[in-house]
Amino acid sequence: MGLRAEIFEQPAVIRRLLRDQRRTAADIAAALRRADPAFAFLAARGTSDNAGRYANYLWGAVNGLPVALAAPSLFTLYRRPPRLRRALVVGVSQSGRSPDIVQVVQHGRAQGNLTLAITNAPRSPLAQAAEWVFDIRAGRETSVAATKTYTAQLAALALLSAVWAQDEAMLRALHQVPSWMEAMLALDADIARAAPRYRYMTQCVVLGRGYNYATAFEWALKLKELTYVAAEPYSSADFQHGPVAVVGRGYPVLAVAPSGAVLASMRSLLRHLYRDLGAELVVISDDPELLSWAQVPLPLPSGVPEWLSPLVAIVGAQLFTYHLTLTKGYDTERPRGLHKVTETV
Amino acid sequence: MGLRAEIFEQPAVIRRLLRDQRRTAADIAAALRRADPAFAFLAARGTSDNAGRYANYLWGAVNGLPVALAAPSLFTLYRRPPRLRRALVVGVSQSGRSPDIVQVVQHGRAQGNLTLAITNAPRSPLAQAAEWVFDIRAGRETSVAATKTYTAQLAALALLSAVWAQDEAMLRALHQVPSWMEAMLALDADIARAAPRYRYMTQCVVLGRGYNYATAFEWALKLKELTYVAAEPYSSADFQHGPVAVVGRGYPVLAVAPSGAVLASMRSLLRHLYRDLGAELVVISDDPELLSWAQVPLPLPSGVPEWLSPLVAIVGAQLFTYHLTLTKGYDTERPRGLHKVTETV
Repeated sequence: MGLRAEIFEQPAVIRRLLRDQRRTAADIAAALRRADPAFAFLAARGTSDNAGRYANYLWGAVNGLPVALAAPSLFTLYRRPPRLRRALVVGVSQSGRSPDIVQVVQHGRAQGNLTLAITNAPRSPLAQAAEWVFDIRAGRETSVAATKTYTAQLAALALLSAVWAQDEAMLRALHQVPSWMEAMLALDADIARAAPRYRYMTQCVVLGRGYNYATAFEWALKLKELTYVAAEPYSSADFQHGPVAVVGRGYPVLAVAPSGAVLASMRSLLRHLYRDLGAELVVISDDPELLSWAQVPLPLPSGVPEWLSPLVAIVGAQLFTYHLTLTKGYDTERPRGLHKVTETV
Repeated sequence: MGLRAEIFEQPAVIRRLLRDQRRTAADIAAALRRADPAFAFLAARGTSDNAGRYANYLWGAVNGLPVALAAPSLFTLYRRPPRLRRALVVGVSQSGRSPDIVQVVQHGRAQGNLTLAITNAPRSPLAQAAEWVFDIRAGRETSVAATKTYTAQLAALALLSAVWAQDEAMLRALHQVPSWMEAMLALDADIARAAPRYRYMTQCVVLGRGYNYATAFEWALKLKELTYVAAEPYSSADFQHGPVAVVGRGYPVLAVAPSGAVLASMRSLLRHLYRDLGAELVVISDDPELLSWAQVPLPLPSGVPEWLSPLVAIVGAQLFTYHLTLTKGYDTERPRGLHKVTETV
C-alpha cells in the first residue's frame, strides 16, 4: 500500500461503505429522531476535525442541526467540561485512540446525551466510549497522511445526513461519488506535469467556503504534512477580514470553488486576487471562467451537487499534494516529525 | 490617534468599561439565568471571531455553556439556517455592520432565542437586531488593525462571565487587568530593539492553547494584516496532528504560554521544538524556563490568572507586531487591501 495506492483506493472504499453501512446509518438516524438533539457537539483533531467542518455545514443545512466543534482541553487539562444537555456528542477519529476525543465522548454519555463515534477502529477506546459506532471500514491506512479515511468519514457524515433526512435524491447522488472520484483520479498525469512549477513554493493560502471550507482546511493540512509548505486555509469571507493583506503579485492562491450557493462569493474574490493583485491561481472547479484564470486548472466533473463536491474535490487536492511531495523530494509515507497515531490530551 | 496610541489607550478603555458597564452585565446575566440556554451560538468575523474563541473557553469552563461558532453562510448564501432552540445567539462586531453577522442574530431572535450584540456601535444594525446590547465603549478606532476594541470585547465577555457566575474573586481580578496591561506596555523599548531580527521573516507559526488559543489567532491575524507575514495559529494539540512537520532548524515559532492548566502541554511542545528541532522562539510567558529558551522573551507580569492572561498577553503581541511593521517599512494605519469595515455575506 502507501499514499498513492490509498488515494486511488478511494472509489472502492466509498462503494464498500455505502453498500455495507446503510443499515447502521438507518439505526443511528432512528436514534437521532427519538432523541431530537438541540445541537451537535463534535470532537476531533487534524484530518478528522476537517470532517467535522463538513458536518457543521451539511448537518446545519440539511438536518437543521447547529454543530459546535468541541474544545477538548476543557475536558482534559482544565477539567471543567461544559454542561451538555440535549446534545448529540460525536467523536471522529481514524484510530479512535486520542485520549482527549475519547474523554469528550465519555463525558457526553455520562451526562445523558446521545453519543456517536465515527472511526476506522470499531474496537478502539473511542468506539467503546460511544453508544453508537459508525465503522467507516476504510481498511488499514499505512501512510501517515490520511486520505481514504478522510473521504470515508465525509461519506459517513453524508450518508447519515441523507438517511436522517429520508431524502432519496440525496442517496442516489451519494452513490455517484465513486465514479466522480474516478474522473478526478484521471487527472493524475496532468497534475504530475504541473507540480514542478511549485518546487520552490514555501507558502500559500487555500480558499474554500461553505461545504468546501473543509476541503480548504484538508488541502492545506496535506500540504503542511507532506510538502512542509506553510499553507493557510480560509473561507473567502474570513480572508477578506484581514489576511488578504498578505497577497502580492505572484502569491500562490489555491481555491476550491464548485458550482453552488457560494460560487458567486468565490468568483468575486478570485477575480480580485487574479486581476487586481496579480495572484497565481490553482483552481478546483467546474466553472469554465474560474478554470480559465488558473495557472493550473483542476476540472471537477460536471453534475456534482455542491454538498458532495468535498468528497470529489479533495481527490484532486490529494494528487496535487502527492506530486508536489515527489517534486520536492520528500517522503510520501512518513513525513518528518509525525506518527500515524497522535495521542494528545 | 492611530495604532500606537490605540495600543497604549487599552488600560484606560478597560477601566472605563468595567466602571460603566457593570449594570449592563448584571441585567444580561439575569436574563441568562432566566433563559438557561443549553448552548451559545456565536457569530463573528476576523478579530471579533478571536474574541469568540475566548468565549468558547471562558463560558465553557466558568459558566458551563457549550459554545458553537456559527457558520454565517448557512444563513446568508445557503439560506438554510439551522434550527436554534434553547440557544443564546451572540453577534460580536466592532462596527456592527457586517450583514452576515446581523442576519444570524436576526434569525436567532425570530426563532425565539435570547440574543446579544457585543459591539462598539450601539446604534448599528447589529445592535438593533439583538434584544440585549453590550456597548464596549472603546471610543473611535482609527487604525484598520483592531487592538483596543479586541481587548474591550474580551473584557466584556469576561465581565459577563464573572457577573453571571456571581464570582467576586473573578471580579476583583478583572479590575487588575489595566495595571497588568501597563506592565506589558513598559516592554515597548525592549520590543523595539528586538524587532529588526525579524525584518526578513516571511512565515511563522503562533502557538497558544485553551484561553490563549484566541491570543494565538489574534497575534497571527495582526501579523498578517500589518506585516504580511504568513503567520499561522495553532493549539499545541492541533499542531502535533500534522502541521509540526513544517518546523525545521531556525523556523520561527511564536508562543503564548502563561502559567495555568495548559502550561505543561505548551512546555513539552516548546521544549521539543527548541531542543530537538532547533526552532527559534518568541515567548510570552511568566515561566522562567520557557522565557529562557526564547530568543525574544516577553515576560508577563506575575500573578495574572490564566483566564485573564489573554487580555494582558495580547498587548505584548500587539507591540511586537507594531514594531515589526515599522521595521519592515509598512503602513501601521492602512494596510494594503484592507478597510476598517468589511461587509461580507
